[in-house]
Amino acid sequence: MSRVYLVDLGQHVGQEVVIDGWLANMRSKGKLHFLTLRDGTAFRQAIMSKKEVSEEEFETCGRAGIESAVRLRGLVNADDRAPGGYELHVKGFELLAEVHDYPIAKQSSDQSGPGPDFLLDRRHLWLRSRKQHAIMRVRHRIAMTIRNFFDERGFCNVDAPIFTPAACEGTTTLFETKYFDGQAYLTQSGQLYMEAAAMAQGKVYCFGPTFRAEKSKTRRHLTEFWMVEPEIAYAGLDDVMQLAEDFLCRIVADVLERCQEELATLERDVSKLQAITGPFPRMSYTEVVERLNAEGHPFEWGGDFGAPDETKIGSWSDKPMMVHRWPKDIKAFYMAPDPENPKVVLGVDVIAPEGKGEIIGGAQRAHDLGYLEDQIAAHGLPREAFEWYLDLRRYGGIPTAGFGLGLERTVAWITGTEHIRECIPFPRTIYRITP
Amino acid sequence: MSRVYLVDLGQHVGQEVVIDGWLANMRSKGKLHFLTLRDGTAFRQAIMSKKEVSEEEFETCGRAGIESAVRLRGLVNADDRAPGGYELHVKGFELLAEVHDYPIAKQSSDQSGPGPDFLLDRRHLWLRSRKQHAIMRVRHRIAMTIRNFFDERGFCNVDAPIFTPAACEGTTTLFETKYFDGQAYLTQSGQLYMEAAAMAQGKVYCFGPTFRAEKSKTRRHLTEFWMVEPEIAYAGLDDVMQLAEDFLCRIVADVLERCQEELATLERDVSKLQAITGPFPRMSYTEVVERLNAEGHPFEWGGDFGAPDETKIGSWSDKPMMVHRWPKDIKAFYMAPDPENPKVVLGVDVIAPEGKGEIIGGAQRAHDLGYLEDQIAAHGLPREAFEWYLDLRRYGGIPTAGFGLGLERTVAWITGTEHIRECIPFPRTIYRITP
Repeated sequence: MSRVYLVDLGQHVGQEVVIDGWLANMRSKGKLHFLTLRDGTAFRQAIMSKKEVSEEEFETCGRAGIESAVRLRGLVNADDRAPGGYELHVKGFELLAEVHDYPIAKQSSDQSGPGPDFLLDRRHLWLRSRKQHAIMRVRHRIAMTIRNFFDERGFCNVDAPIFTPAACEGTTTLFETKYFDGQAYLTQSGQLYMEAAAMAQGKVYCFGPTFRAEKSKTRRHLTEFWMVEPEIAYAGLDDVMQLAEDFLCRIVADVLERCQEELATLERDVSKLQAITGPFPRMSYTEVVERLNAEGHPFEWGGDFGAPDETKIGSWSDKPMMVHRWPKDIKAFYMAPDPENPKVVLGVDVIAPEGKGEIIGGAQRAHDLGYLEDQIAAHGLPREAFEWYLDLRRYGGIPTAGFGLGLERTVAWITGTEHIRECIPFPRTIYRITP
Repeated sequence: MSRVYLVDLGQHVGQEVVIDGWLANMRSKGKLHFLTLRDGTAFRQAIMSKKEVSEEEFETCGRAGIESAVRLRGLVNADDRAPGGYELHVKGFELLAEVHDYPIAKQSSDQSGPGPDFLLDRRHLWLRSRKQHAIMRVRHRIAMTIRNFFDERGFCNVDAPIFTPAACEGTTTLFETKYFDGQAYLTQSGQLYMEAAAMAQGKVYCFGPTFRAEKSKTRRHLTEFWMVEPEIAYAGLDDVMQLAEDFLCRIVADVLERCQEELATLERDVSKLQAITGPFPRMSYTEVVERLNAEGHPFEWGGDFGAPDETKIGSWSDKPMMVHRWPKDIKAFYMAPDPENPKVVLGVDVIAPEGKGEIIGGAQRAHDLGYLEDQIAAHGLPREAFEWYLDLRRYGGIPTAGFGLGLERTVAWITGTEHIRECIPFPRTIYRITP
């Protein structure tokens, strides 16, 4: 009898199988033990009846604590009432590693009970809990969809470097690393490198960890997070808005199709996700400011939106809102000016619904050498550090466009998770680099 | 007429299409210009005959230098003699960005000509060259196959953290980063985290950048490289050897199937790759040492293999060599002891053929708490930093097993590239963090 994973029980109905896993929970009633098993692939129920196993097996099981490692032999029954649709009737039981003092009790394993620091200190164990398990599975699915989406469209994955000599967007939030006898900075964005790569490979993306030494302690900030950044040569703002829309629709559709059990575990309102279909509303920054003011939410043209503004904007639609053509002064130096209005640049932010804030920032890049040289000077950036970047305009410069999407913010939105720190396996924040 | 990518020309034979790209090369003969176009997706030939375009178009094209950005209108012809099987007969030509002083001349764009530093200083441009383009495409394919292979087998992608509080394998090669008022170290391996993750998700992998502050200047070392690390709960050495074999076979098969043009560009001897099919030879370390000595290559039991030893071992087969059961004293503290011989541990290294050296290192992990505590002490490691790791043995500890594969070394092997620095888009070495 070979080992079977819990997620595959449906392929073995009526058969006896062996499961290697852990006891996620147990309650006993007379001559029955009701077990919740987990083996990493799923959580499933098992029933052990005293009359179907030896007395020793029944008693050993009865005394095993949560997270004991167990090997079970059992008959697979289909049962619509059981979580996942199947349950096991236990025929044999072996206790592989007995546990009695598991520090995260069932009732505390998700949100109630101990405070977040207690759980974060035990992140290596907390990951086993049902909710965290589900979030990580959705995260995996989103990461796979990101790569599949771009691969199917002919994008080449070109990894951006982590060690960089200079800042892409400002210097105050950089992590500095000793680099032999000098120093390096950890990347905040691969975008400039993706522009070089797009001119070599046409359509590219990088997808890797990114670092911001922000002192923010909000539920939306991590010092280390994953970002995907596609970039296309010979493309403009409209192309990148359409790409962002197609991309978000595909991510949501894949999660809806392939993570049903996880969304149920997370008690996610899937109707909110089913609403995420194109086209998304598109408004210029100026239109947004006008509407904010018209609705009695005062906002001055030229400023950046804060969290309350984004929440207001996000409330205008069940779909992500695309806000384009931003004031030049609040956006990065490399964004292309709007030929129809020099005060704005051809950037776009995508604001997620349900108050989840910005999840995508993108733009058409300025490809005029003189304009970029002026911008680098105007932003007080060290010209020498950007000489290689300016080469991209000197040698066959054409418009490229792209965006960045933060993985953890996307996971938080799609899973309905309040705090982004639950959306990455081992979160790093201003006060935490352990475990 | 809409824009077409060069890689898709075959879908438009007999049609007129528009191509946006760059001039990779041009030579003229009387009333003909022979162009090599590139648009990132492929390199293809185009012929411009003076009689089929305006005089101005013909002359503008004639004076355009390498890497000028161009928009072409042309008729697609099938031609078996042309690279890629198709060529364009130009009907219209627009010079979008004129270039005359492209610093990397055609003859220098790959290996002859200027030294490596000249090209590495211009990596943002060098990536456009034919050979570098092909290597990056193969790298992309391998990265996709890595993820697809594990996804299809039910592995969950669980990203390991980059910021870590302590070293996984020694401290001398760690990069130290200022972390607000303290410091952090950049990860050298996600393995310990993957053990925690495997006990939560059953089968997991991480795939991300990894850092080693090695002062090595060999052609096989980078300070920043990508590593994939699968880990399976309830698994042992034999499982992980089979997984490594299946994995390498799949990577090679996918590249052979999907990167034919790139392999041709790289002049790769594909017969060497076609030989990579299971089963791979498996020898214990002890058997390897005996054979080395028998063949007049003196080697003392207990030492680690150097490059000449690996080259010798790699020469024994056209397939990767799996060397298992290593001396305990030269392997990491967490490897499981062999129950049949306490002097060796259940580790495996996979040595690539063609002198490419070790590409995989894996092991079954020790799951006995007391054994691990002793090993941590014996290796002089700071016990406190590993308390969380020991928790994995305290709470439901069972055998897990996994391996690590370096992406760039794999790309170097499969593409037949001599130097690993050409196998990552923006290489970082002891003397280089630019561009």
